[in-house]
Amino acid sequence: MNSFGQIFRLTTFGESHGEAVGGILDGCPPRLKLDLDEIQREMDRRRPGQGALTTARSEADRLQILSGLLDGVTTGAPIAFMVRNENQRSKDYSNVADTFRPSHADYTWQTKYGIRDYRGGGRTSARETLARVAAGAIAKQVLRGAGISIHAYTSQVADITLDKDYKRYDLSVTETNEVRCPDADMAEKMAERIRQARTKGDTLGGVITCVVKGVPVGWGEPLYDRLSARLAYAMLSINACKGFEYGSGFDVNHTGSEMNDPFVSQDGKIRTATNNSGGIQGGLSNGEDIYFRVAFKPVASVLKPQMTVNKHGEPVTLTIEGRHDPCVLPRAVPVVEAMAALTLVDAMLLNKTIKT
Amino acid sequence: MNSFGQIFRLTTFGESHGEAVGGILDGCPPRLKLDLDEIQREMDRRRPGQGALTTARSEADRLQILSGLLDGVTTGAPIAFMVRNENQRSKDYSNVADTFRPSHADYTWQTKYGIRDYRGGGRTSARETLARVAAGAIAKQVLRGAGISIHAYTSQVADITLDKDYKRYDLSVTETNEVRCPDADMAEKMAERIRQARTKGDTLGGVITCVVKGVPVGWGEPLYDRLSARLAYAMLSINACKGFEYGSGFDVNHTGSEMNDPFVSQDGKIRTATNNSGGIQGGLSNGEDIYFRVAFKPVASVLKPQMTVNKHGEPVTLTIEGRHDPCVLPRAVPVVEAMAALTLVDAMLLNKTIKT
Amino acid sequence: MNSFGQIFRLTTFGESHGEAVGGILDGCPPRLKLDLDEIQREMDRRRPGQGALTTARSEADRLQILSGLLDGVTTGAPIAFMVRNENQRSKDYSNVADTFRPSHADYTWQTKYGIRDYRGGGRTSARETLARVAAGAIAKQVLRGAGISIHAYTSQVADITLDKDYKRYDLSVTETNEVRCPDADMAEKMAERIRQARTKGDTLGGVITCVVKGVPVGWGEPLYDRLSARLAYAMLSINACKGFEYGSGFDVNHTGSEMNDPFVSQDGKIRTATNNSGGIQGGLSNGEDIYFRVAFKPVASVLKPQMTVNKHGEPVTLTIEGRHDPCVLPRAVPVVEAMAALTLVDAMLLNKTIKT
Amino acid sequence: MNSFGQIFRLTTFGESHGEAVGGILDGCPPRLKLDLDEIQREMDRRRPGQGALTTARSEADRLQILSGLLDGVTTGAPIAFMVRNENQRSKDYSNVADTFRPSHADYTWQTKYGIRDYRGGGRTSARETLARVAAGAIAKQVLRGAGISIHAYTSQVADITLDKDYKRYDLSVTETNEVRCPDADMAEKMAERIRQARTKGDTLGGVITCVVKGVPVGWGEPLYDRLSARLAYAMLSINACKGFEYGSGFDVNHTGSEMNDPFVSQDGKIRTATNNSGGIQGGLSNGEDIYFRVAFKPVASVLKPQMTVNKHGEPVTLTIEGRHDPCVLPRAVPVVEAMAALTLVDAMLLNKTIKT
Repeated sequence: MNSFGQIFRLTTFGESHGEAVGGILDGCPPRLKLDLDEIQREMDRRRPGQGALTTARSEADRLQILSGLLDGVTTGAPIAFMVRNENQRSKDYSNVADTFRPSHADYTWQTKYGIRDYRGGGRTSARETLARVAAGAIAKQVLRGAGISIHAYTSQVADITLDKDYKRYDLSVTETNEVRCPDADMAEKMAERIRQARTKGDTLGGVITCVVKGVPVGWGEPLYDRLSARLAYAMLSINACKGFEYGSGFDVNHTGSEMNDPFVSQDGKIRTATNNSGGIQGGLSNGEDIYFRVAFKPVASVLKPQMTVNKHGEPVTLTIEGRHDPCVLPRAVPVVEAMAALTLVDAMLLNKTIKT
Repeated sequence: MNSFGQIFRLTTFGESHGEAVGGILDGCPPRLKLDLDEIQREMDRRRPGQGALTTARSEADRLQILSGLLDGVTTGAPIAFMVRNENQRSKDYSNVADTFRPSHADYTWQTKYGIRDYRGGGRTSARETLARVAAGAIAKQVLRGAGISIHAYTSQVADITLDKDYKRYDLSVTETNEVRCPDADMAEKMAERIRQARTKGDTLGGVITCVVKGVPVGWGEPLYDRLSARLAYAMLSINACKGFEYGSGFDVNHTGSEMNDPFVSQDGKIRTATNNSGGIQGGLSNGEDIYFRVAFKPVASVLKPQMTVNKHGEPVTLTIEGRHDPCVLPRAVPVVEAMAALTLVDAMLLNKTIKT
Repeated sequence: MNSFGQIFRLTTFGESHGEAVGGILDGCPPRLKLDLDEIQREMDRRRPGQGALTTARSEADRLQILSGLLDGVTTGAPIAFMVRNENQRSKDYSNVADTFRPSHADYTWQTKYGIRDYRGGGRTSARETLARVAAGAIAKQVLRGAGISIHAYTSQVADITLDKDYKRYDLSVTETNEVRCPDADMAEKMAERIRQARTKGDTLGGVITCVVKGVPVGWGEPLYDRLSARLAYAMLSINACKGFEYGSGFDVNHTGSEMNDPFVSQDGKIRTATNNSGGIQGGLSNGEDIYFRVAFKPVASVLKPQMTVNKHGEPVTLTIEGRHDPCVLPRAVPVVEAMAALTLVDAMLLNKTIKT
Repeated sequence: MNSFGQIFRLTTFGESHGEAVGGILDGCPPRLKLDLDEIQREMDRRRPGQGALTTARSEADRLQILSGLLDGVTTGAPIAFMVRNENQRSKDYSNVADTFRPSHADYTWQTKYGIRDYRGGGRTSARETLARVAAGAIAKQVLRGAGISIHAYTSQVADITLDKDYKRYDLSVTETNEVRCPDADMAEKMAERIRQARTKGDTLGGVITCVVKGVPVGWGEPLYDRLSARLAYAMLSINACKGFEYGSGFDVNHTGSEMNDPFVSQDGKIRTATNNSGGIQGGLSNGEDIYFRVAFKPVASVLKPQMTVNKHGEPVTLTIEGRHDPCVLPRAVPVVEAMAALTLVDAMLLNKTIKT
């Protein structure tokens, strides 16, 4: 359904070319002074039209908060928010009303519901992620109060791959380039690759790495709501996401002796000497950095002509025009962070229920 | 929590060395004649002591069904089932009561709850997965009635990797070898690698591939309960699972033009010419085979001495004895299938709610 | 939390004097052409300022629908809607910021959250029920397609009580008087009693009876989501509601022989000769009319001076000014219907999940 | 479904004449030493065969706990428990396999599911409530640690009604008579009325009053999970329950001035001078006693011949034999307490999630 989370629960609404996109964030702890400018800055990180690498659709995406605050302070009541759609240009999409765009949601949604809002992808548009980013920005502020920070970055675009561990990068550099990559040289290579693809009317995929620092021991709920399972669920709910791994992940060619993380005592705390566990053991956070990687396929909206069928099953050649990102990674970085933040606040609140 | 699924919902209980392990499966459609022998056969696929590659703990693991059936037919009432623990040998584990085994759940659970059942891993033991397999066996029978089959197999153990697409293997061969690999030669290489590891008191990880055939178009629930997200959530809830990818997954070094799956008309049906989407588009099944890969870390219970700390944070050398699998993959194959089956039946039932 | 329903799920937001009040209705079946005028008419039934018996706060309460429709037809996507607050007059309420109004939510909410939106009752204002009525109006249209209608009416105000069975009244008359009572003479007596109370600055309570016709056999989910339990839950979630009974309810001074409803065959259908069961047996609808009664206490906002304490626990005399209904019953009639409609559509959709 | 509660969640299973009846209680706080004898004593309060007023079916109903405890202490893992069915005498019920007993669940369940376990009422038997009582007994122990106690009693049987406020009775006397009424004289009158009904093969209904002492301010979750709404939902989920009211309830013939509860300062605490609110204001507990009344219809299994139809719709005369309570009230007292306890622990745990 259109809700995410059990206690700290986001419910979203809105189509790409409808009236508005937004959501209701329920379960937010009371008496938290929100920094509204910071929420808008997170929105700006996600919004289109940031530069040469993203879609030209340029909406201000000003967030309106409709409820839940008293003088900017949370009251425990649901926080509703929305962004009005301003720049809809519906004509761009008229040729897709009866045609199924390859590797898009058109065919499956049409078949499931017997109807679909074809205007700009409707509900399946990545524009929906603005609601996640808005709620995630609130979640980040909740987490900051608990000493927790989240840092995502683009670690791969096509064949350009950061080959070092996240600890070898200065993650504060991430926002200084368009690609959101903490290695400036690699960022430029990635950007160049994206520009090449765009020139050809093509698109690229890649990988985002996300690191969460400061999570205390014990978050996550056995057995099915392990923190790892909830994070995977959160990430795979993002448009174009195709995979998730945490810690050693798919790097399975090692023995148990090599991969086990020995416990050590350090400054009076129990820590692990290595972190192949990715900060999660037995489904619960273990106090080390949580890190995971998220795979994104290339954007399906290529501008080259494609073979497909229309709703009658007849073959047609489709040429997508409109405005599209040649690579979703840069704008997906804040979305990954937002979904991680929502997941973690929910885990934080659920963890309180076992206290006596 | 200890429940999985929204309509078709499994709730499990039990510790490795407690009285019993089992569960309640709620929401099972009525008037389904269950093949109880087949359920037991699925249990047998998962149980320990099947051969040289698995733990020597040999329990019959006879499933008792306690409710929900009338003359072997489902009534719509919850189906409760359990397996009594018979072969507990608690002494094997006495040395771990105060010690945190590396890369196990001991430390995180002890910290979260302030108590843990240390006997054989307690609730965190992989023995819990027998309840998943029992419920999954029922789910498979529900799916079979809808023409759906699930086939998982071991596709990688350490560095031994099947390098072909699942379509190139005869999946009916999977069960003919101990490793559950559809390529007999590779299976023997994997088995040999596992035996080597066992000899050294070490353990190995790997990857399981799972293929689901026959799912109709439109299963999955937007936006957060996409079929891909629910499958990821299901898989990451399994012990030792570290990653999930479907379709093209982490293989992101391709352009959109290369990866898009063109729609074609075939025998009056709309199909895709390729299946990089892994059978899921826009979060919903598209009628093609659903396939995904699941990463498992090496078993944490290596038999070599390991450095760790006890609950006071003091360094100790731990030697795990007990009975443990040197590689979890062969016995995880039915668990992956079971979790896939539970996820799919839930998606099937939820999909009914939009019919008018 | 702020969500109601499992599949057909309403999530609401908004404070009496905030920006807006509204909600998101998720799970609405697709391809339903909505009559938007009718939804507004339901809103108008609930809105203040309808006549001498209701509060003078007169807002147009124009509903805006923000998502989920394509050319007025549902798409299966969440339907978001809201009403802007226009007539806020916050000054009326300034004297209650630090004072706990007797039998209001002020004290409990302030204690739970450590903060409360004191402006017009904030989130606890009955103004929130407009979101229920909007969603309920959509639910009614879903039900109408299934041949189901809902009729609530005021059956008691203070000591003025309809003493006959609902079948003895022409329920189509209900809307012809301000009190929403199907007996015109009794309606006038009730209205007179309300006017007397208003003159004295006092308020009255009463009972609403609700009848649902056309529900097929088998709606409701065992064992905890019986239709009766869900209806009770729905009604008790309404502001000022103090009780619920269905069928014979609290009228317990009869024997089983007298109260059992004999089954009979009628026109090829199985029916019951009497309906003391209130249309629900074993928690499921039985095909007969469902009827229940809902008790409402007198409005807590009396205009007479009252003794109370402020947030420091100091005694103060409170005089509530503002605009308040002397009796909530007339405007609660559409709210009762709305909550019944939401409950029934949810039951309808859940009931589909057992079909094979 | 067959689960109750959000965090502290009971899932039950079992049919009257199946293998066993039991449940899984998830979300129980860890490190709680359970008094197992006390749990059994609660089971004994509910079990049949306690005396002349209850059914002669005499099962020991010994509770087995299958998981979740380490040396009698909760670990945070799910607590599974069951009672084996010993005294099944299926023959008693053979005549009802094809016949719909009036005011029972037979017809609605058969129609919904197309099958039903007709043996002793199957899943719809009141025997299911033993699982509620077992879980409720654990909940009571959790509540006791928070200083909370629950006292239910029979306040009406047919026309014999306690006419005083609960404060005027010594509730510790309740268990000293078979009827569970705190007024010994009235208890004897009730018992006599029940014996008369039994002699005639008839049955009686009545009302149970429940009082909860010690709940702190602020439990319950706005807006739909008000404590009052959750209690109503809990009570209406009990077999034969027809109504719920709290505080002033259906006693609506009073003005707001009369019914409002003035706040007063008392021993440094804010209290209310009266308690017409029944301990709940704005949906949240206000620190006063919570009290409510629950209506139960007469038992449907009268022993007199009844007119009904069989599954073909043909008229038949049914004579129920078997063993049945002539009045459910005495044995329902512990069930009401159990459901109240489950509701309150869930509210307690949810309330923790807003703490920062």
